[in-house]
Amino acid sequence: MNFAKTARNEKSQLTGVSPNPAWEKLMGPHGFTKEHNMPRSHAFALYDQLVVDRAFGGRFENKYGWGDLARAGGNFNIWDVLVDKYPGEPHKAFKPGTAAAANPVCGELQDRRPILDWAYLGDPEPKAKWSRTSKVVDFVKDTKHSLNCIFCHDPHGAQPRIIRDGLIQALTRPEKDTLWHKDPKAGKVDVKELGQRGFTRKIAILDKYDSKLQCGQCHVEYNCNPGTDPTTGKPVTMSDQRTNHFPLKNVNDLAQHYRDLKFRDFKHAITGAMLWKAQHPDVEVYYGSVHDKEGVMCHTCHMPKEKDKKTGKTFTSHWQTSPKEYVKEACLGCHKTWSGEQAKYTVDSLKNRYQGKLRKSEYWLTRMIDKFEEAKNLGVDEATLNVVREKHYEAHVHWEFWTASTARTPHNPKLADESINKGMVISQDAIKILDDAMAKKRTLAVAAPAPAPAAAPK
Amino acid sequence: MNFAKTARNEKSQLTGVSPNPAWEKLMGPHGFTKEHNMPRSHAFALYDQLVVDRAFGGRFENKYGWGDLARAGGNFNIWDVLVDKYPGEPHKAFKPGTAAAANPVCGELQDRRPILDWAYLGDPEPKAKWSRTSKVVDFVKDTKHSLNCIFCHDPHGAQPRIIRDGLIQALTRPEKDTLWHKDPKAGKVDVKELGQRGFTRKIAILDKYDSKLQCGQCHVEYNCNPGTDPTTGKPVTMSDQRTNHFPLKNVNDLAQHYRDLKFRDFKHAITGAMLWKAQHPDVEVYYGSVHDKEGVMCHTCHMPKEKDKKTGKTFTSHWQTSPKEYVKEACLGCHKTWSGEQAKYTVDSLKNRYQGKLRKSEYWLTRMIDKFEEAKNLGVDEATLNVVREKHYEAHVHWEFWTASTARTPHNPKLADESINKGMVISQDAIKILDDAMAKKRTLAVAAPAPAPAAAPK
Amino acid sequence: MNFAKTARNEKSQLTGVSPNPAWEKLMGPHGFTKEHNMPRSHAFALYDQLVVDRAFGGRFENKYGWGDLARAGGNFNIWDVLVDKYPGEPHKAFKPGTAAAANPVCGELQDRRPILDWAYLGDPEPKAKWSRTSKVVDFVKDTKHSLNCIFCHDPHGAQPRIIRDGLIQALTRPEKDTLWHKDPKAGKVDVKELGQRGFTRKIAILDKYDSKLQCGQCHVEYNCNPGTDPTTGKPVTMSDQRTNHFPLKNVNDLAQHYRDLKFRDFKHAITGAMLWKAQHPDVEVYYGSVHDKEGVMCHTCHMPKEKDKKTGKTFTSHWQTSPKEYVKEACLGCHKTWSGEQAKYTVDSLKNRYQGKLRKSEYWLTRMIDKFEEAKNLGVDEATLNVVREKHYEAHVHWEFWTASTARTPHNPKLADESINKGMVISQDAIKILDDAMAKKRTLAVAAPAPAPAAAPK
Repeated sequence: MNFAKTARNEKSQLTGVSPNPAWEKLMGPHGFTKEHNMPRSHAFALYDQLVVDRAFGGRFENKYGWGDLARAGGNFNIWDVLVDKYPGEPHKAFKPGTAAAANPVCGELQDRRPILDWAYLGDPEPKAKWSRTSKVVDFVKDTKHSLNCIFCHDPHGAQPRIIRDGLIQALTRPEKDTLWHKDPKAGKVDVKELGQRGFTRKIAILDKYDSKLQCGQCHVEYNCNPGTDPTTGKPVTMSDQRTNHFPLKNVNDLAQHYRDLKFRDFKHAITGAMLWKAQHPDVEVYYGSVHDKEGVMCHTCHMPKEKDKKTGKTFTSHWQTSPKEYVKEACLGCHKTWSGEQAKYTVDSLKNRYQGKLRKSEYWLTRMIDKFEEAKNLGVDEATLNVVREKHYEAHVHWEFWTASTARTPHNPKLADESINKGMVISQDAIKILDDAMAKKRTLAVAAPAPAPAAAPK
Repeated sequence: MNFAKTARNEKSQLTGVSPNPAWEKLMGPHGFTKEHNMPRSHAFALYDQLVVDRAFGGRFENKYGWGDLARAGGNFNIWDVLVDKYPGEPHKAFKPGTAAAANPVCGELQDRRPILDWAYLGDPEPKAKWSRTSKVVDFVKDTKHSLNCIFCHDPHGAQPRIIRDGLIQALTRPEKDTLWHKDPKAGKVDVKELGQRGFTRKIAILDKYDSKLQCGQCHVEYNCNPGTDPTTGKPVTMSDQRTNHFPLKNVNDLAQHYRDLKFRDFKHAITGAMLWKAQHPDVEVYYGSVHDKEGVMCHTCHMPKEKDKKTGKTFTSHWQTSPKEYVKEACLGCHKTWSGEQAKYTVDSLKNRYQGKLRKSEYWLTRMIDKFEEAKNLGVDEATLNVVREKHYEAHVHWEFWTASTARTPHNPKLADESINKGMVISQDAIKILDDAMAKKRTLAVAAPAPAPAAAPK
Repeated sequence: MNFAKTARNEKSQLTGVSPNPAWEKLMGPHGFTKEHNMPRSHAFALYDQLVVDRAFGGRFENKYGWGDLARAGGNFNIWDVLVDKYPGEPHKAFKPGTAAAANPVCGELQDRRPILDWAYLGDPEPKAKWSRTSKVVDFVKDTKHSLNCIFCHDPHGAQPRIIRDGLIQALTRPEKDTLWHKDPKAGKVDVKELGQRGFTRKIAILDKYDSKLQCGQCHVEYNCNPGTDPTTGKPVTMSDQRTNHFPLKNVNDLAQHYRDLKFRDFKHAITGAMLWKAQHPDVEVYYGSVHDKEGVMCHTCHMPKEKDKKTGKTFTSHWQTSPKEYVKEACLGCHKTWSGEQAKYTVDSLKNRYQGKLRKSEYWLTRMIDKFEEAKNLGVDEATLNVVREKHYEAHVHWEFWTASTARTPHNPKLADESINKGMVISQDAIKILDDAMAKKRTLAVAAPAPAPAAAPK
């Protein structure tokens, strides 16, 4: 257990990745404004998802109170420690400041048990116990703990595999447009269709370990919630396959991808722009980076080899946490001239630079939103406002992608740099459009009313 | 001396408890916007109160300069290190950026000496040397150092006691409405009226140690300054007993308490709402918490028992600082399955969560204030603005209470959660009222002037 | 190498010295809003200046990628690690989010080589290879590393000296108005005019080591860029000597100094006020401080004496970094009653206080700028706006001076206090002017249009 990664550590703290007041203004009224925490160990993924204020409206509480945050180690059945305070009640927000935004597609909710009871993409099937449209409270009560061996290892043999259906769909879609399709060194993927239980399931066997795909079952941007079709304004409900969807694309292609998919997550509270909420696009950041080009994959640094002290045998660690915790194993094997201090120095330098860039990005997005509100109140026409709303969407993608990614820092500083700067330029363009429109409006306002008082005296 | 708690550590730093720009906007023009520091050891309480920019306008300085901040230990006569730079001058602000907001009721100013020269509640009495209306500069020159043994221990016997008059008044008021009155486990309080010196004084002997009352002589919300009667708009001066008043109530009852008392501390610079300034409502946070229900009191964790190394005798430590500094003695005696790391992890987790909640609360309060200013400038009617001012007061209580409390974190996370969220909802309600009023105003503005230019030409 | 001082550590991070959103709003559109880092060791001064986003538009990159940030030690030829990605291209911004704001006067660009090819003040001279107007990309390719022995030591003898021409000009100007001129303990300065190469050069031999002048060759406010003459609005180009200018004055005299010089660095994006960008006014902070009055100079604390372990000889360390890294040598020799912890405690206390004051200052400056934008949009007259612009300039000086100084904390807390508070009062005055002007405008607006609709019906 890493005691430095505290539980329920709000990202919108001023020392956090997405500090307020920007976070609240930029993301309102999305559920993530209710509670949005720094991640801690994988072992807590399911537990944390059940207690977070935005997911189940305050329904689930720790039986032993807040003090149980100190439970060391994550190898536990969540139902040994959690209690449903509102049994029988529908899925809703029970307390002020909470939201009920969970659904069965959420990656964190998918543990070992439901996989055999879940058809491909979660389509509702008579013989499948669970689907995208299942009642999420019942669904989670059928889960026990977070991710499992079978996510990456086939239980019947030694083969590396992937099982997340949204990813398998992305890898097999006719457009062949994912980062994996464009990767010259990508391994082969053998998709197997299974139907023994009376409904289609799919798994994909890999010809070799490819952690970009294996970790990419969760550490990517994916869509896992209902939303809106921006071309019609109509809801996209959980019965639609778009609510379980993986783009697996570069940040520069994401805005267009969701335009083509006709999907947006939420409507911005102030501008009314139809916006996107990122998950954790980590693998997408990594594709094309210096490390990637050198053949390094996720497991190289996050699951370094180590020697068993007793037997002397080498094995693959499954720590799966920050390499900063074991720099020697993770960095110094390749960076042979470095000391551990030098490795950490590089990571911290990159982090400080990008935190700074994100704060700049937030300045320009925030100013654009403030100007929008002013322009709307001044009566600037809807056509102009719609142009700005689309710019808001694009600028937002180039910011939110990086606050959401847990891999933003040393994975691909060049891409981060380009993307965050691009977003700032888009915000600045939008501000200019608004300023020009308002200046015109104000000139007209001054010109028009002038004659009126003159006419009055008579 | 705890060297981690630096002197004059501004709370409105961005890493602080009440970061700017929110603090300045939310609290202006209250004196605490001049300087507002994280507390350090009890021993410095009086010294820090004399040099802080908001209290004596820059009158008192350290004889040895800023370097004397490094003086280790607090067992000193303040007049050995402080000098009055403006002797003979009236109590006022001598420098830009300072205020002269001290008065004889301030808890920090009351040390051992004046207690015998101070009538009950500080009422002016011919034979009492000092009163609420005394000149505060003269008064402080009659003090020497911070809190004393006699605050909690009767010098004539072994009895635990309390001496702070405002608290004694609260415990004996006919309404019987304090948290102590409602506490089923509360100890007995025997108030003794003393009058040997020709004026009434009161002390209260306790039947057993009750640190909720003993620490609650200072670590509570109390009123210790002049203000305004919100029903008449007239000043409440130091000659009024309301300037030495302890509510001792839950955060949810505070807004109403001060309504009933007809007292408010200051008028907000932007909205003009009559607002409250909290002291440090720590004991109020604690009543009803999980620890409280288990019979734990302030001293259990802040003054744990320890063994004298030489004699082997057990005694009560009087460190009175954060249990994080001595987790073993303070936490692990009860939390027997925890390690020290686990205890700290829990405290830090709670802290991170509440810091995040407070930043959200500030976002909504700030937006409400900005909207108010806009609405007022747009000519929204006073009736609507007054409704919002009262909501401002209520939302403010549910924020300021928690930034002011030094015990906000592990003492009662449930209450903090409920209260801060409640405040946010009130701010959001107020924003809706303002938005609706402004939308109506703007619609009328567009509708009304239209005919004018048309009429002009002829 | 000090691994705690990371590379490219953005000052506008929320934990930084000049946090956003204030930094971006207060400094826009100045180049320092592109990238503005905490300084690291002297050895990196030149390298960091070449890669920073604001200086060369993204032209120079590290050959070995971001990872080379971890290169320990700074004793390297920058051209062994840097590469020009756009050879032959003009000096310009190559990437979004960058600027091309470097020129040959920048202190960091001046290493040993060019000094013999540079006439006094960088005036263009036929026989001098370089001048203020040289192409900066060519110029920097003729540099190798950061500051040098010859900055402070004459290579022909043992004499202490200074060579920075802007400083020599300040010390010899007829007004005799620098802090050095007013310093009763100032050493003598013997300016020697050299002309062997066919153009004038100057150096100044000191009668004794005077690190206030020697360090003051860089650690001062100086002007090193083109700007604008605020009296005419015309550009001041690099051909003008004002682009290589040292005021060497107290913060209270700076606004007037640049008024007299008829020079301003940039026009503020929102108010249009002509503003100043500080370099790093460290020596100016120090003059008149308690330490200065005691005869302590820069080298006393930043270059303390130490003993060679082998020979036992005492020598002057040339670490030139924060005394917090070697408190024993730097502080405890004089502060004999202190422990190292006490020394650090004092420094940290002062730092926390001033960080807080700066955050307050930013609140008031930001509010003033927001009010300005509102007033301008409301049609407040230019005469009023011009009064506010001049107040903006003055308030800005009393803030920017302190965020830019790397010596703000323990060097002169009294001056910092006075100056930052003075700036706040000026901002508040400006806000009052704007509020009054807007109130008047709004009253007229309500009064004027009233008759119009009445006139319409007929």
